[in-house]
Amino acid sequence: MGRLSTLFAPERVAVIGATDSEGSVGRAITSNLLESFDGDVVAVNPYKDDVLGLRCYDEVGDVEGEGIDVAVVVVPPDVAIEAIRDAGAAGIGNVVVITAGFGETGSEGAARERDLREAAEAYDLNLVGPNSLGVMSTPRGLNATFGNEMATEGDISFMSQSGAFVTAVLDWAAERDVGFKDIVSLGNKAILDEGDFIAEWGEDPETEVILGYLEDIADGEEFVRTAREVTQETPIVLVKSGRTDAGASAAASHTGAMAGSERAYEAGLEQAGTLRVESVQELFDFAQILSGQPLPDGEEIAIVTNAGGPGVMTTDAVGDSDLSLSSFEDETLGALRETMPEEANIYNPVDIIGDAPAERFETALETVLEDDNVAMAVVVACPTAVLSFEELAEVVVSQQRAHETPVATTLMGGKSVGAGREILSEAGIPNYFDPARAVESLDALREYDEIQSREYEEPATFDVDRERAREILESATRRDTNRLGVEAMELLDAYGIPTPAGGVVSSPTEAEELAEDIGDDVVMKIVSPDILHKSDIGGVEVGVPPEEVRDTYEDLVVRARNYQRDAAILGVQVQEMVDLDSGTETILGMNRDPQFGPLLLFGLGGIFVEVLEDNTVRVAPVSESDARGMLDDIESAPLLRGARGRDPVDEDALVEAVQRLSQLVTDFPAIVELDINPLVATPDGVQAVDLRLTIDQEEL
Amino acid sequence: MGRLSTLFAPERVAVIGATDSEGSVGRAITSNLLESFDGDVVAVNPYKDDVLGLRCYDEVGDVEGEGIDVAVVVVPPDVAIEAIRDAGAAGIGNVVVITAGFGETGSEGAARERDLREAAEAYDLNLVGPNSLGVMSTPRGLNATFGNEMATEGDISFMSQSGAFVTAVLDWAAERDVGFKDIVSLGNKAILDEGDFIAEWGEDPETEVILGYLEDIADGEEFVRTAREVTQETPIVLVKSGRTDAGASAAASHTGAMAGSERAYEAGLEQAGTLRVESVQELFDFAQILSGQPLPDGEEIAIVTNAGGPGVMTTDAVGDSDLSLSSFEDETLGALRETMPEEANIYNPVDIIGDAPAERFETALETVLEDDNVAMAVVVACPTAVLSFEELAEVVVSQQRAHETPVATTLMGGKSVGAGREILSEAGIPNYFDPARAVESLDALREYDEIQSREYEEPATFDVDRERAREILESATRRDTNRLGVEAMELLDAYGIPTPAGGVVSSPTEAEELAEDIGDDVVMKIVSPDILHKSDIGGVEVGVPPEEVRDTYEDLVVRARNYQRDAAILGVQVQEMVDLDSGTETILGMNRDPQFGPLLLFGLGGIFVEVLEDNTVRVAPVSESDARGMLDDIESAPLLRGARGRDPVDEDALVEAVQRLSQLVTDFPAIVELDINPLVATPDGVQAVDLRLTIDQEEL
Repeated sequence: MGRLSTLFAPERVAVIGATDSEGSVGRAITSNLLESFDGDVVAVNPYKDDVLGLRCYDEVGDVEGEGIDVAVVVVPPDVAIEAIRDAGAAGIGNVVVITAGFGETGSEGAARERDLREAAEAYDLNLVGPNSLGVMSTPRGLNATFGNEMATEGDISFMSQSGAFVTAVLDWAAERDVGFKDIVSLGNKAILDEGDFIAEWGEDPETEVILGYLEDIADGEEFVRTAREVTQETPIVLVKSGRTDAGASAAASHTGAMAGSERAYEAGLEQAGTLRVESVQELFDFAQILSGQPLPDGEEIAIVTNAGGPGVMTTDAVGDSDLSLSSFEDETLGALRETMPEEANIYNPVDIIGDAPAERFETALETVLEDDNVAMAVVVACPTAVLSFEELAEVVVSQQRAHETPVATTLMGGKSVGAGREILSEAGIPNYFDPARAVESLDALREYDEIQSREYEEPATFDVDRERAREILESATRRDTNRLGVEAMELLDAYGIPTPAGGVVSSPTEAEELAEDIGDDVVMKIVSPDILHKSDIGGVEVGVPPEEVRDTYEDLVVRARNYQRDAAILGVQVQEMVDLDSGTETILGMNRDPQFGPLLLFGLGGIFVEVLEDNTVRVAPVSESDARGMLDDIESAPLLRGARGRDPVDEDALVEAVQRLSQLVTDFPAIVELDINPLVATPDGVQAVDLRLTIDQEEL
Repeated sequence: MGRLSTLFAPERVAVIGATDSEGSVGRAITSNLLESFDGDVVAVNPYKDDVLGLRCYDEVGDVEGEGIDVAVVVVPPDVAIEAIRDAGAAGIGNVVVITAGFGETGSEGAARERDLREAAEAYDLNLVGPNSLGVMSTPRGLNATFGNEMATEGDISFMSQSGAFVTAVLDWAAERDVGFKDIVSLGNKAILDEGDFIAEWGEDPETEVILGYLEDIADGEEFVRTAREVTQETPIVLVKSGRTDAGASAAASHTGAMAGSERAYEAGLEQAGTLRVESVQELFDFAQILSGQPLPDGEEIAIVTNAGGPGVMTTDAVGDSDLSLSSFEDETLGALRETMPEEANIYNPVDIIGDAPAERFETALETVLEDDNVAMAVVVACPTAVLSFEELAEVVVSQQRAHETPVATTLMGGKSVGAGREILSEAGIPNYFDPARAVESLDALREYDEIQSREYEEPATFDVDRERAREILESATRRDTNRLGVEAMELLDAYGIPTPAGGVVSSPTEAEELAEDIGDDVVMKIVSPDILHKSDIGGVEVGVPPEEVRDTYEDLVVRARNYQRDAAILGVQVQEMVDLDSGTETILGMNRDPQFGPLLLFGLGGIFVEVLEDNTVRVAPVSESDARGMLDDIESAPLLRGARGRDPVDEDALVEAVQRLSQLVTDFPAIVELDINPLVATPDGVQAVDLRLTIDQEEL
């Protein structure tokens, strides 16, 4: 059991601020606890002698007898911190702070929240909230919330950054067959956040599926680490709202949380192995099927239907998903041919036609479920005079159980569906009117199966010259700038990312010597942090023959001075010519996300990134397969792989460059942003031709 | 009223094949008719004296009294055609053929269906089916189907190519508040098809929304024409299944219909002004809001909620849609500031916080609906102790009515929603648990409003040399080939699509003369239908100076002969050099779709079409704005418009070229396929550099 086990399964709960005044939150919580909790409830309120029949203590420290596991704090904000300290001093490990008026209300509240966090940390409290609706746990009947509704028992555990959404879900679930194990309203997440709860539920044998509604993730890197472990056993399905620009600013004004970028969330949640959904409907559709059905052994689906049209709609939904239609084995086709009417379509989607009674569904379903090419099935039935949905439901349940293969159903109707739906629901088989939802839900099973079989490799650690890299970064500090350019190319050399021969020199003679070493025509560029668009001022010369290097040096410096008399000139870069024609320009970059840390970006250069916005991101550090996945992600990937008669580039070299950059930015949090543009990829390797980075000197 | 008015509102209906044998289709139809139809039912069956209390006639011609408006045919397939002839001979105008065993069952059935069509055409019958579930119309209580369920009255008319789907929808609708005007099961569409029914319902004042489930469209061009007119008054919402490759082959095996391409359907249905949806859920979500709410006067939406989190989810849904969040006027903000609690968020999404009773919702909703920047509103409410969903529903209804502004609601709950939902539903205000559905439905209103305000311009008719074009096409006939290349460039000249100076010559001397006329270096290419990849065999020379033209001619011919001794050589193309560097290569093409006819394709050349698949299609003929829309559609459009420091190309010239090609392929159905690749666009115009086309000689 996790460290929060006593939070969800306490023996004794104290309500600090218990009261019986009508309509108050303190009364609602006390009476909710009294109603269903199978442990002991203690009331604390210095202004009351008894509350709802309970003796009322002045302070939580006064309570005699066995220890209290959870204190629920509902006193006003100005005394809440004192109450938390009292709880800590009394040895209570878990505190649920219902009280609002903290970080969500402006600067005064934010200061109060800092004090609250300090108090909680001083006593090492597991603190939920503040500004929480409370917590619930059905096995003990624990309802430490001020909502109107208690959850029914089930195997879904649910956390929500919106308390109102918890009340909505409970009201909705009361009408359906959706049960819960634990529910927590996260509130402002001063201490406990989503990472703590997924860790707890990951160890909880009674939680089959973890659901979350989140508006931000407090610590992205920690979340990814925890979620990767948890999702090996327990699926996590999340709505992360504030996806769109409009939604993100609404979320910011609602929670006051600093927003990470949507792209970082997208990458981070995917790398973490969570199933991210966009709507409330999907959240619960996926929860139900994950809790009720086994995982499929493949991606191939069989459709069995009594109606051609709905069969086509279902097939379209399969086409939209990552599932594929099973091709049946000859034996299956033979058996179907023998047992189905002549007008039936025995190929997938199997159409057993309109006069099919439940028995024919049974035969067809049994036959296809025995086929090794069938990893899951969907049964799509329209109401007819000869078909009882109730009988059909029983047949589906028994076949699903016998084959232990995931099944979903579409009983396409309304009033005649009722009894059948209940039979299915009790057996954990989800039923929908719309076949698209059945297929999407089965696809979620496939996706989770794929997540579960992921092997998270450790990021490779290359042999690099970390000290040299540190020196180069520190040189910027000495020059009192946060921005570095090609003068820092050695940073890449130090981490084994290939660069063309060359360097930055500070005299015509040095330039000439370097060009002679290179032994061919060179590219020369003025190096100055004050000149951003070097080409525009004539600060770049391409294909300079050795004999013109000396003069070109002088020319470049003059042009720079003419452009800006006091420009800081660090010298001139002399670089081997890179054959751009035989190579493909790519961009490899990084910036830091407030929640997820370093975010790597990869794409093809030029129009691909600028006009077509064709690029992909990953949270660093990345493993080899993460890095390889980035190459697969972009639409323009075929251009790296020999489209239009070109030679394919050296993908392994690209993948290695991504991993090496990942190592660099992970080793040095001081690198705030970095762009290698272009990183030229050829059939023989890669070369970083240009570099820009920004550093945070305080992190050095 | 349309020509099908007596089909849906008959006085007298005959059932040919009426019977009382238990479980038969003939009995089901007769008893369904007897149950609710307010007209007269006549039974026809030579083997019966009476059926379900009706006197039974031997033949429909024997029936005395007033004329029969509709004959429903349920006799076996081998006698069905005779029954149809009898009906025609008796002067019956409408026939509904329930009988199956026609085109859906193989070659014998297909032949039978041809006979049926002939019989129907001989009597000019409005024939539904065969293989139809039947028709319904609620105002007269007409239930001429063999389903179990009669629709309740409403303003939605619904056609379905799947009879089973009709039964599913009726069963589902019986549980909800969804009513219908007319329903038709299209069956095999031997005579009447989707185009006829949309035309009928377009003229029917009792039909507010037309819904359809289609697997194919019989005549795409006719459908587009009709739908454009109908959708000026009445929205059409369609599921067209077989969207995906898998779905299309399932549909083909189900209906035996020849599939048009999905891209043609996509373009055609969009150009027709229909709202195409992908799921059954959307079909009815859109139907309900279109039938219940007025159209918005803009795309700006206000969100009013008592819960921050669900407010953020709703804002995300707005971000996903084509709607935008209203920016409130100062007056609105002032009024909200005055009337809402201090903790409320008065900016959109308006969060009137958790302690809001219905009255506060009323004040907030009234205030925002009076704002000119608010074209529609969504109310999102979570259950709380102080809020009655019933009261809230009443408030929303009265505000919606007072402002005549479209409103949808998300009462986020289950068991406490019931009464509120009913009040809303009676007032035509849709309610959903998931805010995304509310926003998507409001977005459908916006989309239909935009469709309604479309002005379908006539395609421009340019002054072209049609006779010359015909001669060029006919020259292919003389050469006994279906494929033409650059030798047909004059076809483009004849239709005013600019081509570089030049032509195809058949001797070195002619080549030299032509090059002299051009007066500059030229491009020379061998012209042979037998040599597809000219560059590979050295069949193309670029930048040939005038003095080398003669020798180059000889070289090209020798290389062609070396490659293939008996290749048909039509000559050598001598063409002005086109400066590809200053231009952008585009592709303009056409192929013919079996349902929609000529389909124009436009995209950028090279990797854009081949690797990135970035292109767009329209059904021809296109208007100027259609053509301009093609330029807007592609992702790489910025490259035409001056991205990365290039001069923008002459868009008007491109738009005109698209229209001129549209005119060419519309004028000549013999052109089966055509590709101008590249069509080079520059700041000064366009030039068609290369051409391939395939013709169908029988169409000439």
